Amino acid sequence: MSKYWSKIAAGQRPYVPGEQPKDRKYIKLNTNECPYPPSPLVLEAIKEAANEKLKLYPDPSGEDLRQTVAEYYGLKKEWVFVGNGSDEILAFAFMAFFDPGSTILFPDVTYSFYPVYANLFQLDYRLVPLREEFSLYPPDFYDSEGGVIFPNPNAPTGNYVTMEMIEKILIRNPDKVVIVDEAYIDFGGETAIPLIAKYPNLLVIQTLSKSRSLAGLRVGFALGQDGLMEGLNRIKNSFNSYTLDRLSMAGAIAAIRDESYFQATRQKVMQTRERIVPILRQMGWQVIPSQANFIFISHPVFKAEGVFTELRQQGILVRYFRQPKIDNYLRVSIGSDEEMDSLLQALTEINP
Amino acid sequence: MSKYWSKIAAGQRPYVPGEQPKDRKYIKLNTNECPYPPSPLVLEAIKEAANEKLKLYPDPSGEDLRQTVAEYYGLKKEWVFVGNGSDEILAFAFMAFFDPGSTILFPDVTYSFYPVYANLFQLDYRLVPLREEFSLYPPDFYDSEGGVIFPNPNAPTGNYVTMEMIEKILIRNPDKVVIVDEAYIDFGGETAIPLIAKYPNLLVIQTLSKSRSLAGLRVGFALGQDGLMEGLNRIKNSFNSYTLDRLSMAGAIAAIRDESYFQATRQKVMQTRERIVPILRQMGWQVIPSQANFIFISHPVFKAEGVFTELRQQGILVRYFRQPKIDNYLRVSIGSDEEMDSLLQALTEINP
Repeated sequence: MSKYWSKIAAGQRPYVPGEQPKDRKYIKLNTNECPYPPSPLVLEAIKEAANEKLKLYPDPSGEDLRQTVAEYYGLKKEWVFVGNGSDEILAFAFMAFFDPGSTILFPDVTYSFYPVYANLFQLDYRLVPLREEFSLYPPDFYDSEGGVIFPNPNAPTGNYVTMEMIEKILIRNPDKVVIVDEAYIDFGGETAIPLIAKYPNLLVIQTLSKSRSLAGLRVGFALGQDGLMEGLNRIKNSFNSYTLDRLSMAGAIAAIRDESYFQATRQKVMQTRERIVPILRQMGWQVIPSQANFIFISHPVFKAEGVFTELRQQGILVRYFRQPKIDNYLRVSIGSDEEMDSLLQALTEINP
Repeated sequence: MSKYWSKIAAGQRPYVPGEQPKDRKYIKLNTNECPYPPSPLVLEAIKEAANEKLKLYPDPSGEDLRQTVAEYYGLKKEWVFVGNGSDEILAFAFMAFFDPGSTILFPDVTYSFYPVYANLFQLDYRLVPLREEFSLYPPDFYDSEGGVIFPNPNAPTGNYVTMEMIEKILIRNPDKVVIVDEAYIDFGGETAIPLIAKYPNLLVIQTLSKSRSLAGLRVGFALGQDGLMEGLNRIKNSFNSYTLDRLSMAGAIAAIRDESYFQATRQKVMQTRERIVPILRQMGWQVIPSQANFIFISHPVFKAEGVFTELRQQGILVRYFRQPKIDNYLRVSIGSDEEMDSLLQALTEINP
């Protein structure tokens, strides 16, 4: 505590990202990174962009990248916003669309950054309890006072909500913004993007960190109608004119254009997931059905925290959340087949 | 205006960066970029970092870059904070150290992003009138209620404040944070960094955009004692865990290490400035003494706005601010010698 901190700084409990330890080489199944490298075309585009133009500011509105995303999803460029990772866009969206004193809704088990944003911007929020097996029940999100946000698939559970369910939530919040955080949508879910044309209150946020293997590049984007895009831009342009550097934009454009590489990568991740889930179940693990690049597992006998610690000692990192309702679960990112085999092996040794 | 905007979004008047037009090739003297390319070692480091590790998140706290900056300035790593350009760091600093209801001070003629941040975070501020020839009079900044911020050299004037003057302001604001925004310090001014060890209320912010020719890479840093660094980290980690991508950090480290390139570049810019200022004065232009990579000029006869428009038509971009007190001035970035000769030629044709 320092006397120089603002009240907001003093009152914050910051988000804690998954650990990135340097003490030894780990099998990293703790931050939902993609086990496969980015497309070779991405690396090529970055090398090409590493030229003397770096002396000049980047395009502050990221026109070329927005055009590329727009074409990919068949939308107009004006319905695309780009940012320094989807976390930055989430922060802007909380500022742009939610007001203090007007309670917003999100699930009680969800991305743990949401309450951090809410506190940072002094917003009131209500945690909506998920139903059986962490499922989201749409009527719980009807008629919100201040707006709604949830990831789809949800994190850290991997649970998926259908487009029909999202549409119901949109219809029952006509004057409030509903944010669907689709960080993990490319691993089996169906995106809500087709609903944008019909619902001016829908904001969809995606990232290149997972399905495009670019966590290290920091690029995300948001899609929505003009009013929402303009709102995001008002905040962004009051915060930082140039959020994306020239290299990130060049790499991101190449990533979105390399459709075959993208398809191959996400298919591999999904195949690995489908292969190991039945094995884990046979081993006695309960696995929440996942449409994401991670699974959420628990065991009726072995305590999650103990397994987490033992795996760590064996050089395998997974994510454990010491939180109500999920403190006997582990979130395990889907790695390569070899990495997952090492995990299965380690789990067998822990609970023979 | 959209019904979906928060009160803050609706009430914002965003910052407008200098134009980056694409309609033709311009001599760009409007956004204070460096006319010389980044060090070849920077481009090399970026190309090397364009590898499969981009699939992994970057180090969220930027240890290696912080270590490099710390060594360069002879400070400890814990006194360094890194961010996505100095604008992002400024935004974090406004949140971390200033409180609504407690009036902060900055000059009436200064970086036009400051009032935008203040509005975004609902802060009260008082514009302190600069004295003769836009000079800053330290006692005007004593005993602030909420804190102080000013650029040194000031923008858009280029005026410089000595370390003794800064020290007086620090002494007279012992319980409030004084932010010295040193975006342009490498072009002749003396940095306040040596004062950090003595004053826990001093935050110095710098950028690689100008003197390191890396406006397109988006890297800035802040220096200050532990309390201030921790305050910045609390906000940053409540906003976006990973603000700097792997490529930017690799490039920034190489830039700071290439001391001889840095020295050569900034010397060239300063020499060009010293060469053209007397010529402009001979042509009848008034030039505010500048320690920055730009000059602030006005003419007793020719109106700044008219000259701005004529220069633009001739393919030369400078910056004109339609603001009280400075609406008859032009801010002209120091380009290469050839670019400045083109400017002089164009000005001669405008006012023969």
